[in-house]
Amino acid sequence: MTGTQVVLALDQLGTVTFALNGAMTASRRVRLDIVGVLALGVITAIGGGLIRDVLLGATPPAALEHWYYLAAAGAGAAAAWVIARPPRALHRVIVVLDAIGLSVFCVTGAHKAIELGLQPAPAILLGAITAVGGGTLRDVLVGDVPSVLTSELYAIPALAGATVAVLAGTSNAAAPAAVVGAVLCFAIRMVGVHFDLNAPARDPHAAPTEE
Amino acid sequence: MTGTQVVLALDQLGTVTFALNGAMTASRRVRLDIVGVLALGVITAIGGGLIRDVLLGATPPAALEHWYYLAAAGAGAAAAWVIARPPRALHRVIVVLDAIGLSVFCVTGAHKAIELGLQPAPAILLGAITAVGGGTLRDVLVGDVPSVLTSELYAIPALAGATVAVLAGTSNAAAPAAVVGAVLCFAIRMVGVHFDLNAPARDPHAAPTEE
Amino acid sequence: MTGTQVVLALDQLGTVTFALNGAMTASRRVRLDIVGVLALGVITAIGGGLIRDVLLGATPPAALEHWYYLAAAGAGAAAAWVIARPPRALHRVIVVLDAIGLSVFCVTGAHKAIELGLQPAPAILLGAITAVGGGTLRDVLVGDVPSVLTSELYAIPALAGATVAVLAGTSNAAAPAAVVGAVLCFAIRMVGVHFDLNAPARDPHAAPTEE
Repeated sequence: MTGTQVVLALDQLGTVTFALNGAMTASRRVRLDIVGVLALGVITAIGGGLIRDVLLGATPPAALEHWYYLAAAGAGAAAAWVIARPPRALHRVIVVLDAIGLSVFCVTGAHKAIELGLQPAPAILLGAITAVGGGTLRDVLVGDVPSVLTSELYAIPALAGATVAVLAGTSNAAAPAAVVGAVLCFAIRMVGVHFDLNAPARDPHAAPTEE
Repeated sequence: MTGTQVVLALDQLGTVTFALNGAMTASRRVRLDIVGVLALGVITAIGGGLIRDVLLGATPPAALEHWYYLAAAGAGAAAAWVIARPPRALHRVIVVLDAIGLSVFCVTGAHKAIELGLQPAPAILLGAITAVGGGTLRDVLVGDVPSVLTSELYAIPALAGATVAVLAGTSNAAAPAAVVGAVLCFAIRMVGVHFDLNAPARDPHAAPTEE
Repeated sequence: MTGTQVVLALDQLGTVTFALNGAMTASRRVRLDIVGVLALGVITAIGGGLIRDVLLGATPPAALEHWYYLAAAGAGAAAAWVIARPPRALHRVIVVLDAIGLSVFCVTGAHKAIELGLQPAPAILLGAITAVGGGTLRDVLVGDVPSVLTSELYAIPALAGATVAVLAGTSNAAAPAAVVGAVLCFAIRMVGVHFDLNAPARDPHAAPTEE
């Protein structure tokens, strides 16, 4: 397997996992029919990449051009419908798989942005958007404030991974930089999950509420 | 009238109807000013096509390039503002007109996706997105979970119509395939409305709710 | 300073202000962590321009191509995080700065749409979308119905300013038309704020609520 094949394989793994996790998360929040479960799973999986590709003008987006993205996303979402009530033991597996998806997407997203000519800062941003965009769309569609905006270390590891991929990747070392970026993202995310870390927050009730 | 003219006329009819129905639906949910009523009517009518064209890279989108889309959408939304309280008898008419819009948009959306080089599976998806995308944007803007994700047969007839248009349309028979697809979509939708059919659903309270 | 430099300077001032105001408004509504405050500030500031550029096919969008947009937006959002509890006296300043942002964005947005070949009506619409799009995205992300759809004179001054810029700007007088449009937008907005004017509205409880 070449490096590109490894990335592509990880990308598909991330897509399946995001779809599975996204469909399950959405199903726990509101009553959805089968269309809703499948749609939200697929949107969680490919939504971040769609936003990235639309912003880059790379249309039609990769997820609509290559059959395996929709197949992977559809398979993950369908599995969520079939499983319905995941056993408790599966939760930990899902969290790990989701972190893998996050790590792969922030790096591949940033890499694509650089390839299409963006400067480092917006490329890092697009890497993070690729990683968190699908879950954000899902949360908005089920009527929640996106969890990425309120709690946990979720965007921060994605930004860290994308930063390594972009800054180290401008040299000749795109492939190792991508691996280091993804591993860093995964490590920060799992440390955050394990110790239940949150980014500093502002409570609206502590601020004057008149407008 | 040629076939293209018939499609264009139906497209305008669908646009007017979606705007009328969209503005009325939004007005029943939350308090809106005239800007809100007009904006939500227009977004319901042209939102699905905007999403399709942006994803296809067909910019500027048709709805912003040809004056008659904005005119039709604006007229429908303005009518909703003027009517304000539709008489009960009008509801049935609106449901039928909305089903016509759904049927036309799923077929024309899929057709455009094929023309711009997409594979069958994403083209079918884009056809359905064209049909349900505007209503989804409206529901998100007024703070509701999009009804297409929760109940009724709405996305399924759009997917069925788009599938016929795409699969039968790859041969020499694009025009008759479009007609058959639209009629199939309309038939499934009206059967669903008449018998109050819903797609199978998952109740979140039946699933473990801890996360 | 040439006219273009003046416009660019005002554009940056609008970006900083929108980010500051957007981040503060979002923080008053829901509990956000630092990622959420910064993200919502940046989205408020550059979201309208992103929507405009994506619809126009002008990708990558200006806000991702020129470093100063992200820098200005990030600075405004970071200031909102640091200030946290704005003193009462600052509120009036923020309202004025926000009105400046609205006035600049509606004119520059409409101008770009005309330059890229759109007809007057969609160009006016895109001008208004540039001005109100960022705040709309912010409101949707924090789970509110966008205030632009429900109350106050906010979209109407933007539409008025864009209309002047487009209609007067088709002649040789793009620069003065832009100034007059922006001043008109600012004047209507400040009159609306001062007298607490609202666009006419429809109360959903006055209409039949069955569906």
